[in-house]
Amino acid sequence: MDVVEYRPTRDQYVWTFGGVAPSHRITPGTLLRLWTEDAFSGRLTSTSDRPSAVLNMAEVNPQTGPFFVEGAEPGDTLALHFVDMTPARDWGASSTIPFFGALSTTERTALLHDPLPERTWIYELDRARGVVRFAAQSVDLELELPCNPMLGTVGVAPAGREVRSSLVPDLFGGNMDTPEMKPGVTCYLGVNVEGALFSVGDGHYRQGEGESCGTAVEGAMDVTLIVELIKDTPTVWPRIESDTHYTVVGSARPLEDAWRASQIGMIAWLGELYGLDRLDAYQLLTQISESPLANVVDTNYSAVTKIAKNLLPAGSAYGGMHAHLRDTARTI
Amino acid sequence: MDVVEYRPTRDQYVWTFGGVAPSHRITPGTLLRLWTEDAFSGRLTSTSDRPSAVLNMAEVNPQTGPFFVEGAEPGDTLALHFVDMTPARDWGASSTIPFFGALSTTERTALLHDPLPERTWIYELDRARGVVRFAAQSVDLELELPCNPMLGTVGVAPAGREVRSSLVPDLFGGNMDTPEMKPGVTCYLGVNVEGALFSVGDGHYRQGEGESCGTAVEGAMDVTLIVELIKDTPTVWPRIESDTHYTVVGSARPLEDAWRASQIGMIAWLGELYGLDRLDAYQLLTQISESPLANVVDTNYSAVTKIAKNLLPAGSAYGGMHAHLRDTARTI
Amino acid sequence: MDVVEYRPTRDQYVWTFGGVAPSHRITPGTLLRLWTEDAFSGRLTSTSDRPSAVLNMAEVNPQTGPFFVEGAEPGDTLALHFVDMTPARDWGASSTIPFFGALSTTERTALLHDPLPERTWIYELDRARGVVRFAAQSVDLELELPCNPMLGTVGVAPAGREVRSSLVPDLFGGNMDTPEMKPGVTCYLGVNVEGALFSVGDGHYRQGEGESCGTAVEGAMDVTLIVELIKDTPTVWPRIESDTHYTVVGSARPLEDAWRASQIGMIAWLGELYGLDRLDAYQLLTQISESPLANVVDTNYSAVTKIAKNLLPAGSAYGGMHAHLRDTARTI
Amino acid sequence: MDVVEYRPTRDQYVWTFGGVAPSHRITPGTLLRLWTEDAFSGRLTSTSDRPSAVLNMAEVNPQTGPFFVEGAEPGDTLALHFVDMTPARDWGASSTIPFFGALSTTERTALLHDPLPERTWIYELDRARGVVRFAAQSVDLELELPCNPMLGTVGVAPAGREVRSSLVPDLFGGNMDTPEMKPGVTCYLGVNVEGALFSVGDGHYRQGEGESCGTAVEGAMDVTLIVELIKDTPTVWPRIESDTHYTVVGSARPLEDAWRASQIGMIAWLGELYGLDRLDAYQLLTQISESPLANVVDTNYSAVTKIAKNLLPAGSAYGGMHAHLRDTARTI
Repeated sequence: MDVVEYRPTRDQYVWTFGGVAPSHRITPGTLLRLWTEDAFSGRLTSTSDRPSAVLNMAEVNPQTGPFFVEGAEPGDTLALHFVDMTPARDWGASSTIPFFGALSTTERTALLHDPLPERTWIYELDRARGVVRFAAQSVDLELELPCNPMLGTVGVAPAGREVRSSLVPDLFGGNMDTPEMKPGVTCYLGVNVEGALFSVGDGHYRQGEGESCGTAVEGAMDVTLIVELIKDTPTVWPRIESDTHYTVVGSARPLEDAWRASQIGMIAWLGELYGLDRLDAYQLLTQISESPLANVVDTNYSAVTKIAKNLLPAGSAYGGMHAHLRDTARTI
Repeated sequence: MDVVEYRPTRDQYVWTFGGVAPSHRITPGTLLRLWTEDAFSGRLTSTSDRPSAVLNMAEVNPQTGPFFVEGAEPGDTLALHFVDMTPARDWGASSTIPFFGALSTTERTALLHDPLPERTWIYELDRARGVVRFAAQSVDLELELPCNPMLGTVGVAPAGREVRSSLVPDLFGGNMDTPEMKPGVTCYLGVNVEGALFSVGDGHYRQGEGESCGTAVEGAMDVTLIVELIKDTPTVWPRIESDTHYTVVGSARPLEDAWRASQIGMIAWLGELYGLDRLDAYQLLTQISESPLANVVDTNYSAVTKIAKNLLPAGSAYGGMHAHLRDTARTI
Repeated sequence: MDVVEYRPTRDQYVWTFGGVAPSHRITPGTLLRLWTEDAFSGRLTSTSDRPSAVLNMAEVNPQTGPFFVEGAEPGDTLALHFVDMTPARDWGASSTIPFFGALSTTERTALLHDPLPERTWIYELDRARGVVRFAAQSVDLELELPCNPMLGTVGVAPAGREVRSSLVPDLFGGNMDTPEMKPGVTCYLGVNVEGALFSVGDGHYRQGEGESCGTAVEGAMDVTLIVELIKDTPTVWPRIESDTHYTVVGSARPLEDAWRASQIGMIAWLGELYGLDRLDAYQLLTQISESPLANVVDTNYSAVTKIAKNLLPAGSAYGGMHAHLRDTARTI
Repeated sequence: MDVVEYRPTRDQYVWTFGGVAPSHRITPGTLLRLWTEDAFSGRLTSTSDRPSAVLNMAEVNPQTGPFFVEGAEPGDTLALHFVDMTPARDWGASSTIPFFGALSTTERTALLHDPLPERTWIYELDRARGVVRFAAQSVDLELELPCNPMLGTVGVAPAGREVRSSLVPDLFGGNMDTPEMKPGVTCYLGVNVEGALFSVGDGHYRQGEGESCGTAVEGAMDVTLIVELIKDTPTVWPRIESDTHYTVVGSARPLEDAWRASQIGMIAWLGELYGLDRLDAYQLLTQISESPLANVVDTNYSAVTKIAKNLLPAGSAYGGMHAHLRDTARTI
């Protein structure tokens, strides 16, 4: 098994999907040991830091990559199996940012209000207890919250000659900000350009569904993943497979369209897995869909349709790719 | 404890929140043993039934009630504790209905397409195994799905002199279609008119999050609940408390506004419970919110914000009403 | 010609469509000479008035009516021809209202911002010059704006047993707030209940398209209209016919759905008028539709599809009703 | 005056804003005489052509350019004065395209419907009469519609390192599809990258507001424009100035957000022109805004806020740039 380790320096960060030269060329089957900087580019470190003062908005959400996958072509599907995500620092940060967040006027939901106040929270990580600590600033309240590492941003180069900011989620994946992107899952992304050119970033030590204020417990992350390629098999909306669930992520505005995309994606997947026609799949989904929101803050919103495998007959998605990668991961 | 049993006859069904005389006058503390007809008014009984042929669209989603609660006034909160929901029939029904459903053109998302085909599914209930059976019609596939009874519709008379169809969810509750409305929970609804005038209906033997095609496993239900009144305490958006979670339901269009309402409602609740200011509550919610969709099919969409109690310090909502009602329920 | 004059006293104002007894029973062909109070119920009279202090939010947008039209039944269409609208006072008022308006957080687009500041503007009417005067408060700027009287609210009792606030626009008409509802037009509304039970109100001396801050130049109005009934002819979304245009008003959220409704309504109308199938009508509309927004502030938003008659062959809508009412109006 | 003539060959068409090398480097003050191919790349020529058969979806909406403007830097504003737009062919084409259009399920409003039928309309241009001819296919109806040339797509390279498809409208302009982009107007676009890198295309011989089916009367166009640069003056959302109107175009989803953006843009402009604070500008806009929709079909929807100059005192936008360019145009 080829192994590539990569810890980009600040000048190696990338800020877009598409439009940049690959950091590495790898073959399917490669194991990657990566480090990802946090979405603030490490600039938010104290509760006294105000985002408008310390952040450079042209340098937010740095990505690690992109990786050119040998043999990947449009019409193929890239499989990224996340073996491990481990916080690379002992603290994470979150903040309200002017004109950003689900409960704020924004550039896109443009109202006449002044921005909400800026406030920064620092979450200490207790590795032994597996928790991050929330400390309120308006009252004397501290809470231990389970540390649940995930990646906010996983994507390939977009179709249609486009180059998109790493802040955007869409068909190419990107900044989906779903807690489903966690260790042990396989993410399937349709390949749009030769080499796929995927990158990853935006580690979260924890995030609620919807990512209300727009920033999770943001933290640098050590990420281990295995890359595989499924030839001649297209994927439309990003899919995630775990040992327990099938998941599809849709991204759009308004939010109902994001969710509809994820539902249509799942109806297609149920058809592939079990031969159900669209009406039967629609009906089944009506009764078994789990629909936890991902983000309601980014340029597109992201919504999730998720099905528990234990409600379904045994299925084999992408030729059993997830099980194969799980097995491979155990050998590392 | 006062006990009222009520199984409305067909001419006693009500179709609106507000605008109808109470079926009963009850005092706070009363135990109700109710029967609710299914949303199809019992007219859909076979896979060969086509909704456009057998349904009367002026008689869908019948409610049981309304109940006039002595002493209830605007500014109070009604607490409905659901002790039990038991399917009243051995089968439930679901169907695609022309120009209805999240993945169909509708009266409100008016497009030029012909309606999707009508198809009806009948789910046999196996009480011993606690499952309902899905039978696909396009392929040979049968699935056992856990029977998880819930009520799609729980509401009070609206504010502002309005009378709303039982198909509508809004501030007054109504057709929220959230799987959170299940046995063991307490639903809190702000009182808008003297007597509150609440009713319940729309039993689902099971429903996925989002209720994609618009109809769950619809079935008549035997419902046991205890009614309480919290004086001089307003509630804006409907709240649900269980032993494990606090939940707020928002209803609006587009879907992001439904979710925002539920988030704002939860931020208010966190303030009441722990004294957090709005920024601290916003931040905490960002990291711990569960956001499972309720429905993306009704006149308003309904979205949920939900917090696990085990992440929070002990709190006492509405003076410990839920715990009190749980205890009371155990004495029945 | 029967003539009814009606100037409701304060206790005769109605606040809903549906749910109230008729003020009058009239026969088709009746001429009505009505007075309507402004949407503030006359309580906002000076630039020093703050809405939160002087308004009673339970008494906004009073309607004059409702009128029971003899012979009107569901499936019929009511035609209201507006002969004249004349300002009944020499000034109108407009104001920002907390948590209301297109560029403010609202109850439905619920964000964490404080309300925008309240400010009231009084517009003096110069009848001789036919203008109202805008006076800025932040700089020394006064403008004369043409006085273009219109009615914000025209509607019938809703379908489905509902009673809706006079603040709501929907299929029944209501608070559409479109500048198209001006003297000389005929408004067609589908009848939902016996007698139709229509009412009118919410005079505007002038309004921009979209009604940004939520309140036009609000003023009491003297309204003259002729009522007619078109039997056995349904109308779905409200239609307006003038000497120069056909117009359909759709109301929904999000705004694209309001506009889609108006488009579907116009495609139906083009089919009725010229026999065009839906694809030809869709194409024609693509090239000739005028789409001025009505309101982006009310419970539902309202959008307009409008076609200039001079682009089309002569047509006869509703059997030439508008021409007939125009002729009748000239005889008064 | 420098004059550049450019008729790109097929291999010179560009398909994105950003991401391509300039076709020309020009200085401010240059007159451009351009030819633009139609949005179908000239492939739709007969009513028997089905888009799914003849179009190459990777080659739609070709742009002419991009032009590198010497001295243009981020923070400047580009002024494009359209002296003339003349149809370059004697016919235009329009068509329904599968899964595209405001009244169809689309990739983004993903539903389970089959696509609407494809149909193509050819509009003959009568230059003498200044009309294009609509011929219905379902009935015997032909209409003469005024030929009103406009450009659907005018934009600069985007900010944030992005490259966007020519099908997208956004802050950088692009595929706004507003009938306001017509001969005699000056379009102001904020510069995001050195040289601005603007291009134009997508000629329409006529288009209704909203562009319902997604394709106007599409036709090749001869376009004459003058390019100017306003240093050190940023512009957020695209603005258009004519002899009679100030216009701002917002692009987003849902449609209300597109319109809000245009309103916020106009409130800013009123502040610049007359010193009005945001509340006075909001109020004035409420009474005088014209709000004709641009498109409800593209990746973002575009909405317009427009004010008649004759309602306002004389103003001088961008130092009188429009008047200057009008004068210059008369000297050609």
